Amino acid sequence: MVNIGIVGYGNLARGVECAIRQNPDMNLCAVFTRRDPACVKILTPDVPVLPLAETANWKEKIDVMILCGGSATDLPRMTPILAKDFNVIDSFDNHANIPAHYASVDAAASESGHIAFISVGWDPGLFSVNRLYAAAILPEGKDYTFWGRGVSQGHSDAVRRLPGVIDCRQYTIPVPEALNRVRCGENPELTAREKHTRYCCVVAEDGADRCCIEQSIKTMPNYFEPYDTTVEFITMEEMKRDHSGLPHGGSVIRSGVTGWNGENKQTIEYKLTLDSNPQFTSSVLVAMARAAMKMKARGYTGCKTIFDVSPADLSLMSREEMLAHML
Amino acid sequence: MVNIGIVGYGNLARGVECAIRQNPDMNLCAVFTRRDPACVKILTPDVPVLPLAETANWKEKIDVMILCGGSATDLPRMTPILAKDFNVIDSFDNHANIPAHYASVDAAASESGHIAFISVGWDPGLFSVNRLYAAAILPEGKDYTFWGRGVSQGHSDAVRRLPGVIDCRQYTIPVPEALNRVRCGENPELTAREKHTRYCCVVAEDGADRCCIEQSIKTMPNYFEPYDTTVEFITMEEMKRDHSGLPHGGSVIRSGVTGWNGENKQTIEYKLTLDSNPQFTSSVLVAMARAAMKMKARGYTGCKTIFDVSPADLSLMSREEMLAHML
Repeated sequence: MVNIGIVGYGNLARGVECAIRQNPDMNLCAVFTRRDPACVKILTPDVPVLPLAETANWKEKIDVMILCGGSATDLPRMTPILAKDFNVIDSFDNHANIPAHYASVDAAASESGHIAFISVGWDPGLFSVNRLYAAAILPEGKDYTFWGRGVSQGHSDAVRRLPGVIDCRQYTIPVPEALNRVRCGENPELTAREKHTRYCCVVAEDGADRCCIEQSIKTMPNYFEPYDTTVEFITMEEMKRDHSGLPHGGSVIRSGVTGWNGENKQTIEYKLTLDSNPQFTSSVLVAMARAAMKMKARGYTGCKTIFDVSPADLSLMSREEMLAHML
Repeated sequence: MVNIGIVGYGNLARGVECAIRQNPDMNLCAVFTRRDPACVKILTPDVPVLPLAETANWKEKIDVMILCGGSATDLPRMTPILAKDFNVIDSFDNHANIPAHYASVDAAASESGHIAFISVGWDPGLFSVNRLYAAAILPEGKDYTFWGRGVSQGHSDAVRRLPGVIDCRQYTIPVPEALNRVRCGENPELTAREKHTRYCCVVAEDGADRCCIEQSIKTMPNYFEPYDTTVEFITMEEMKRDHSGLPHGGSVIRSGVTGWNGENKQTIEYKLTLDSNPQFTSSVLVAMARAAMKMKARGYTGCKTIFDVSPADLSLMSREEMLAHML
């Protein structure tokens, strides 16, 4: 059994809790929170919710601590600190800051002799793995990543901060023609606008200037300005009824050529269609806890990523089962 | 540089030769053949073609020997023998016999201190890896593998052996409705007939009984009897003009659920669309040669499969490049 601790208790952490229940070799030991533990009600019976300050008392009981904080401020601080006492896994997803995060986590984990996985999930994560496999196999080719149709939390938050906006759900949608051209192996050059459109459902305050909100969204630099954006105003009831989920997904596609004169097209696509983005990310985090324990047992310490993990280490199966049934 | 030797010189070996040219860290040293070397003309200038009996003289010069023989009789015999003198990679694809092949190759490679990869390619190979990842991430789910549209060599050969048949190309075609149901997460139970149809283009001898050939194909046990098969008679000119390629591909799909009550559907699809089946397999073999050298340098010996290889080991990139650009 792998004894798991969870730090934080938002959507991602609840997903981890659910995924632990689906894996017979995983055991949830405790949830640690910065909130008042008495106010945090978890799903699993008989598992304690404890203050974050108490993690050190659980050093001997927890094999892997799964950190479910945010990438902006939580994880850069927490992952290195907790890697001093625990094997840790996080889902740090700020692509530009991965090298710096890696360095600080590696220093802590190497010194303490723990194994620490950063940036685990689907992007970064499984999408990254597929980019790497595909690039290694088709060195003469071109990569494309399409996201969606799905809810982007960052874009939804950006709209929510506008005056007059009560709530927003922003959907990122791949442009079907672009996706088709890539799938056909055309290897087109595509701008941001040509790859994705954005669709915002907005609940506005009574009397708010809807034209002004729509303009503010469509002209928001980086977030919306380089895209074709559709804004639709809906009621709070419609928001709750039709937009309460967090679906996402997308495709990583590499299209390349082989042959003495590059005469044959070869296309690899990895596609996710997810009803729940946080629960899928959680499922990857929990599978990684298994790999972390196997790799730790072989003497690995320091910071690792999904690139360092063999598929066999993610699996509960024995080598014999894998050879007989999966290869 | 990784110094490669190739054993055999059919479609797969020619693909390896082409893939070596696409990878700047790969160097082709020699091709070994059972035929008269004088009759084998390869694409790469200044590389010797040698009798198979001479491999032992190249022990010091070749880092990895890529074996391009057939799975029926060549590889079960050759891989263990060559693993005594070389690190080896094969594409053994007889799924039922993988455990036995593994055992005999492992004994030879472990004793000689070499690393030996078996069953490298796309199925077995990349499809297997995706089955394993997906099963580890979505433990409550169901796997589907669809092959095609593509040429099945085994089925084409089976038809070619019928009296009156000069040539045949057999295409395996996924049933679109079945594929759609799986992609939608329905998790249907599907029979062999419901998943794939078979299409045969046949060149018959003048005066052959076409009805009899068609019946013999459609009722052939295992190969065609459990499928809906279409037989079309074409001329040799049409065969050469329209069916000279060896396209293939397919999809591995796992559809599962997450959430406390399994309330969210999650679907993972890995899809290949290949103009040339042998060249794509070759590209995987060559990437694996890189991984073999990295793993050997870390002390790994014995028989391994693609399940044992971390994505990082397949890549030419440094850790820093991967973290900055691929994760």
